[in-house]
Amino acid sequence: MLYFEDFGIGRSRSAGIHELAADEIIAFARQWDPQPWHVDEEAARLTPMGGLTASSVHTYAIAALLLNRMESVAGIASIRHEIELPNPARPGDRLALTMTCVEKRPSESKPDRGLITFDGVLANQDGTPVLRLRSLMLIWRRPGPA
Amino acid sequence: MLYFEDFGIGRSRSAGIHELAADEIIAFARQWDPQPWHVDEEAARLTPMGGLTASSVHTYAIAALLLNRMESVAGIASIRHEIELPNPARPGDRLALTMTCVEKRPSESKPDRGLITFDGVLANQDGTPVLRLRSLMLIWRRPGPA
Repeated sequence: MLYFEDFGIGRSRSAGIHELAADEIIAFARQWDPQPWHVDEEAARLTPMGGLTASSVHTYAIAALLLNRMESVAGIASIRHEIELPNPARPGDRLALTMTCVEKRPSESKPDRGLITFDGVLANQDGTPVLRLRSLMLIWRRPGPA
Repeated sequence: MLYFEDFGIGRSRSAGIHELAADEIIAFARQWDPQPWHVDEEAARLTPMGGLTASSVHTYAIAALLLNRMESVAGIASIRHEIELPNPARPGDRLALTMTCVEKRPSESKPDRGLITFDGVLANQDGTPVLRLRSLMLIWRRPGPA
């Protein structure tokens, strides 16, 4: 379990790889975001992307999945999330998430907790970012001797 | 089908309501984002949110679902997506999405298409925003007489 004290500015964490299959793209998009370029390979070939791409929601879900596989953070709450999707994820992509602590400060009112800002990047096998994430979390400080 | 010409700056569209049940929050989060505050009502009560909240991914998925229920846009591709999650969605929330055209310009190189920026807000029954979305889309112009 990682506490507030365990994060140094610039320290990065990552989890394994998520291999994205065309079937998974289509199944996810049929449920939540059935745009032709997410569910129909032939229609997708006629778009500027030139082929099937994952729904933005699906790409974000993969980032969440990988985040949940990392060593647990002693989180109290997720205060704020912002994401950007600069490039589409595609079938065959091997996606990896890197989370970096970019800012931290102890709570001013409660000595048992602190705030940390994380920057996350989900990138494919070529290093192309498909999602950028900025997350502000409220995190427990390591319990000290009583 | 809505073409580039059909959008006026400031014109808003909306779809129906999505009623968010606790069961749906838990089921979605178990699959993609199993943080205690998304899957465990008792654990969630002990957090600053004071109860179960939807995963950010789930909130985004609901926005996509409502977007897909609106009148179809003659979209060629989704160029860019940015989202922000200013407040959590909770069990019992009645969520509605409003999409507003905030900027548009014809393509400089291809006369058959144009770019439109949409701002979206997913809000609950009290008008509290749970997701803000900015989307840049490439859209067909209405086919004219040959």
